[in-house]
Amino acid sequence: MLGSTHGTFTTDLRARVVACGEEPTGVVHGVTAAPGDQDVSGRPLHAPVPDLDRFFRPGSVAVVGASDTEGRPNTGITRQLLAWAERVGARLVPVHPTRTSVFGIDCVPSVAALTEPVDLAVLLVADPLPVIEELADTKVRFAVAFASGFAETGEAGAAAQERLAAAVRRSGLRLLGPNTNLNAFERFRDDLEGPAVALITQSGHQGRPVFTLQELGVRLSHWAPTGNEADLETSDFISYFAGLPEVGAIACYVEGLKDGRSFLLAADRAARQGVPVVAVKVGRTETGARTAASHTGKLTGADQVVDAAMRQYGVIRVDGLDQLQDTATLLARARRPQADGVVVYSISGGTGAHFADLATAAGLELPTLPQAKQDELHQWIPEYLSVSNPVDNGGHPVGDWRGRKIIDAILADPSVGVLICPITGPFPPMSDKLAQDLVDAAEATDKLVCVVWGSPVGTEEAYRTTLLGSSRVATFRTFGNCIGAVKAYLDHHRFTIGYRSPFDEAPRTPSPSFRKAQALVRPGRRLSEHAAKQLLRAYGIRVPREQLVTSAAAAVRAAGLVGYPVVMKASGAQLAHKTELGLVKVGLTSASQVRDAYRELTDIARYESIDLDGVLVCQMVGRGVEMVVGVTRDELFGPTVTVGLGGVLVEVLNDTAVRVPPFGEREARSMLAELRGRALLEGVRGAPPADIDALVEVVLRVQRMALELDGDLAELDINPLMVLPRGQGAVALDALAVCR
Amino acid sequence: MLGSTHGTFTTDLRARVVACGEEPTGVVHGVTAAPGDQDVSGRPLHAPVPDLDRFFRPGSVAVVGASDTEGRPNTGITRQLLAWAERVGARLVPVHPTRTSVFGIDCVPSVAALTEPVDLAVLLVADPLPVIEELADTKVRFAVAFASGFAETGEAGAAAQERLAAAVRRSGLRLLGPNTNLNAFERFRDDLEGPAVALITQSGHQGRPVFTLQELGVRLSHWAPTGNEADLETSDFISYFAGLPEVGAIACYVEGLKDGRSFLLAADRAARQGVPVVAVKVGRTETGARTAASHTGKLTGADQVVDAAMRQYGVIRVDGLDQLQDTATLLARARRPQADGVVVYSISGGTGAHFADLATAAGLELPTLPQAKQDELHQWIPEYLSVSNPVDNGGHPVGDWRGRKIIDAILADPSVGVLICPITGPFPPMSDKLAQDLVDAAEATDKLVCVVWGSPVGTEEAYRTTLLGSSRVATFRTFGNCIGAVKAYLDHHRFTIGYRSPFDEAPRTPSPSFRKAQALVRPGRRLSEHAAKQLLRAYGIRVPREQLVTSAAAAVRAAGLVGYPVVMKASGAQLAHKTELGLVKVGLTSASQVRDAYRELTDIARYESIDLDGVLVCQMVGRGVEMVVGVTRDELFGPTVTVGLGGVLVEVLNDTAVRVPPFGEREARSMLAELRGRALLEGVRGAPPADIDALVEVVLRVQRMALELDGDLAELDINPLMVLPRGQGAVALDALAVCR
Repeated sequence: MLGSTHGTFTTDLRARVVACGEEPTGVVHGVTAAPGDQDVSGRPLHAPVPDLDRFFRPGSVAVVGASDTEGRPNTGITRQLLAWAERVGARLVPVHPTRTSVFGIDCVPSVAALTEPVDLAVLLVADPLPVIEELADTKVRFAVAFASGFAETGEAGAAAQERLAAAVRRSGLRLLGPNTNLNAFERFRDDLEGPAVALITQSGHQGRPVFTLQELGVRLSHWAPTGNEADLETSDFISYFAGLPEVGAIACYVEGLKDGRSFLLAADRAARQGVPVVAVKVGRTETGARTAASHTGKLTGADQVVDAAMRQYGVIRVDGLDQLQDTATLLARARRPQADGVVVYSISGGTGAHFADLATAAGLELPTLPQAKQDELHQWIPEYLSVSNPVDNGGHPVGDWRGRKIIDAILADPSVGVLICPITGPFPPMSDKLAQDLVDAAEATDKLVCVVWGSPVGTEEAYRTTLLGSSRVATFRTFGNCIGAVKAYLDHHRFTIGYRSPFDEAPRTPSPSFRKAQALVRPGRRLSEHAAKQLLRAYGIRVPREQLVTSAAAAVRAAGLVGYPVVMKASGAQLAHKTELGLVKVGLTSASQVRDAYRELTDIARYESIDLDGVLVCQMVGRGVEMVVGVTRDELFGPTVTVGLGGVLVEVLNDTAVRVPPFGEREARSMLAELRGRALLEGVRGAPPADIDALVEVVLRVQRMALELDGDLAELDINPLMVLPRGQGAVALDALAVCR
Repeated sequence: MLGSTHGTFTTDLRARVVACGEEPTGVVHGVTAAPGDQDVSGRPLHAPVPDLDRFFRPGSVAVVGASDTEGRPNTGITRQLLAWAERVGARLVPVHPTRTSVFGIDCVPSVAALTEPVDLAVLLVADPLPVIEELADTKVRFAVAFASGFAETGEAGAAAQERLAAAVRRSGLRLLGPNTNLNAFERFRDDLEGPAVALITQSGHQGRPVFTLQELGVRLSHWAPTGNEADLETSDFISYFAGLPEVGAIACYVEGLKDGRSFLLAADRAARQGVPVVAVKVGRTETGARTAASHTGKLTGADQVVDAAMRQYGVIRVDGLDQLQDTATLLARARRPQADGVVVYSISGGTGAHFADLATAAGLELPTLPQAKQDELHQWIPEYLSVSNPVDNGGHPVGDWRGRKIIDAILADPSVGVLICPITGPFPPMSDKLAQDLVDAAEATDKLVCVVWGSPVGTEEAYRTTLLGSSRVATFRTFGNCIGAVKAYLDHHRFTIGYRSPFDEAPRTPSPSFRKAQALVRPGRRLSEHAAKQLLRAYGIRVPREQLVTSAAAAVRAAGLVGYPVVMKASGAQLAHKTELGLVKVGLTSASQVRDAYRELTDIARYESIDLDGVLVCQMVGRGVEMVVGVTRDELFGPTVTVGLGGVLVEVLNDTAVRVPPFGEREARSMLAELRGRALLEGVRGAPPADIDALVEVVLRVQRMALELDGDLAELDINPLMVLPRGQGAVALDALAVCR
């Protein structure tokens, strides 16, 4: 499916431009990108930011298909829209061909008959297409289509959705839906203050728990239920919300994405603004991907790639809706951390031990408090209890004046950024006072104070009134969610502080390598090893000295030129698994060995009925660490770059890391850090450390190739890339390339 | 620390017996094990099951240190004990040297003055030791000591605790504590029916959330707060609870174990009885282990070993107290599953997709419903919605008579064992009816019905009254906990159905190998490679033909006997990293090569100042998969057997699996299935499949050796074990053994 062209380009841009007969102008609805503001692959470099102010706060709303006949579904919807319009101060105009009035408001017979500009048209009709076409001539800026039966139902529905999307493109308005609902127009609490969570969901039911957080005192500013995303998509709302001062964090429930690039650009914008994006993304498994696709008709992408793309732009991916709520709430409200240290404070040594164990396992840093601080704490806490961190107060001190003093003293330590107090058992004489002290202390500090209210009941006064009544204390119900959210909080701030957008440094014009490489491309074909290596050479990636020969005599001459000892390999475009077939001979040291090898290789090929374009005579390369570096295309994100451990390890363990271009050197290095077998690069069993700089350079050159040859290259696989000892470089010993 | 001898033997049995000058008789307090009922290592084969009926339901209770003076801590405790005694129908006898009465009950001046038998003495005194000594002459069966200041405070405390434990052993009574509390004597709800959860915790605060579950309608039968476990330990309570008809599941919070074997025997007893044990076990990290040790003064064990030991006996390990609650509740209440299939049923396609994704990722099986069943469901559910599983009803059918029909139809399918309905948004017109239908349907079926109530609020009527009012519906608050508990439920029943206790098949008498092996042992020393291989040979593990020589001439003669080509290695007891030092020569094919190699090896050793006992001339063994098999001692569990991928893989990836003996062949095979690189054994890149049977046989022989040589062997490491192609066996190419 092609998706919409509003400000984003599909990964198959050039093909699509030709098909549509239009040039990518960089002009999008409501936003003008600078001309030429695209990378060398033709993809945009900035997120289009739709101005959705008038969508969420319209001056006037037309309701097409409004009704006040009891028992009809549209009547309930019209009633809710009326209430909403009143709350936001919008004038509501019912549109109906036969009714004269709805709920006492005069009807307009059609959208064409609207006499004044309308900001938003809500389409309650079963087929929104004709209305969209009529709206093209009006000044309506936004429309919402509730109707279902589009891409979520299969091929015919997808075609209908594409017609609708085309009509939207012609009309100049922006559409939310189809297959969406009233969520954007619900009653939001307006009595809550401080930074809010903005919510984007592709399912109304799935967004409900986040919306319901308002009952626990969490401020929610918006809810965008994006439905099938024929036009406006998740990414548009992320970009828009990231620029609003009241939004502290963006929470998303995503089943599939319309376009990978637009998502990355939106996440990049949020990262630049320092606004955290927390997302549930369905598609961990085939089952999930399939089911999600049948729900909103979107692509889920390869999960490893989605995961990497999100991490590249600091999007916090969580699995459960409970984690989405807890993490988004914390990130929206908490101030910038002043230190990474976490102190666990409890009224029970057991609770402290358990929490510290899980927190440390999750990667939180629990610094040992300085001796002076411990001495200070022992003024109020019996000497036999441990206060090094976790701080165990034994219970009693919380009941009196010491309780608050202990908390303040912990928070005053410069190594402490976060204080977490798990209260697993509600025991009112202690826990009520403790909760109040924590709330009071949190009001008086910029540091983060977290409480885990571990009682499964949750109706206790200290929880519902004291703790939930404070927006300065982050309250959780489980150790796991608290630890996950605090980890995300600290990681996110570390990420944004050091953030440099890779789009600012993405290549915009082809390198000199590009022309050379293009000459080697054979559309739709797989290249021979020799040709694939030429492609690598064009991009400055080292390959062994080698010659392709078609006779034993030529092989001997080639060996002389290449230099003994040599490796000989059968070469052919359709050839894979050369080693298993015995089509590789290594360590040949004489002309006679070369002649014998030539005969044997061609014999095997003949018996196995393999077409050869010749035999490669290659320089022997020294020992190093075998890696793989490759390019594959993801349905959502286009070309991706993979690096992994080579040889048997990649086959058996699939120990690989992937990134979506564009990315810089730091990201390339972080790929290596992700590999389970990374220690091999550092040198084990007396082996010298490998030339990691050279490996990183190859990864970056492969990325450049992937971007420049985006239209030409379907797949590239360097296997093995021999990474030699430090200072000696890396050599691509074998390569496979498939052209588009 | 030695711990108690009540019915369990520490892993260092023989050493301890000598130290204490006593023979292990197999007789334990209250339980008599059959004489000789121990394995070849001297460890017991059956759990001692203390009769704790009179502990939890005593006829009479003496309270030593009872008080009714307002403001004293003991007064509050005495008051609670009085209320408890009244509830359980026990007579309370206050013991105090100076008071004449407490709360109107006549005091006895000392425990020695007790005129009639007392079941339980509660010791509220700061130093329980003298009271325990006095109790030795009475008929008191149980004592509880609240006092703290023992092993949890360090070395001096640990010594005091050992004196207390010794007094208990002499007294003939059983002690709970010290450093425990009133938890066992709390007010339990007695209006709840059905299978109950029994609770064992090493921290009162950490047990509170499970206890509090009673407020949500979950029946709790017992709470054993084991404190420092100077005598009665977690394992004793597991063994006891596993035999009680009212106990459906045992929930444990464990910081450390006193003795690994007693824990395994208790878990084995629970597995035989089919009673699930769910446990939080602190010690995932060093931090956690350290903090836990300072809390109750117990050992945490190596976490990988704890994990394996628990899995071997079906103990369900969870990380959070929330998971402990949810999993124990489900396992206590749910009936045996009739099928493994899980159906996800929801009023939203998004919810179904999301849940199915996470459930599948966690390993749950979501069968596609048969077409006939789907047709049946489409009678009530619109055709365009998917009902294959997940079943999406689109919302409306739950509001009328169709709602119940759909649930019943799904439950009637024979592939379905579990129906899960995630309700993420509370929408009373739908969710109230849906909740009631699910409760009604659950009453009418033996199959498991689960609901996730996803609203973060949790005060909704449908949740608190309808769902929590039913003990037949398992209600969760998060997708994650529901999925984890259902997985544990299905796994546990699979486990118990196929369960055969490894203790029934554990070796009781030494094998003929034992005497041969014992002759090779050198106490406190590390054996040379040659001697270590002799040890392996004694246990029928293949080693290469080899000879130890001390001259070049002898090396040539040896090579002739062993057969060319040969491998030569320097041999010495202190020698490690032979390969890195150049002390291994492979593929020697002639006498002259052997002579040269001998010279080179001894030269290197001289230059490196390495003492050699000679040079090994070994048979070359064919190519195969290199594995490691080893024995290490765990502080809790004694000898453990490890298997892993050899060579660089074990160093870089630490890809190993571990088991605690005794275990059978099935468990040995499951070790291989745990290895990430297991595919190597199946043959990759054209390599033949390895002789897995031979590998399993080596693992089992190594286990036998570990048990028989328990007192002699500190450590064994076969690296590499060359596993040849199927049918060709496995050969230990190198071995290292350290004696105790």
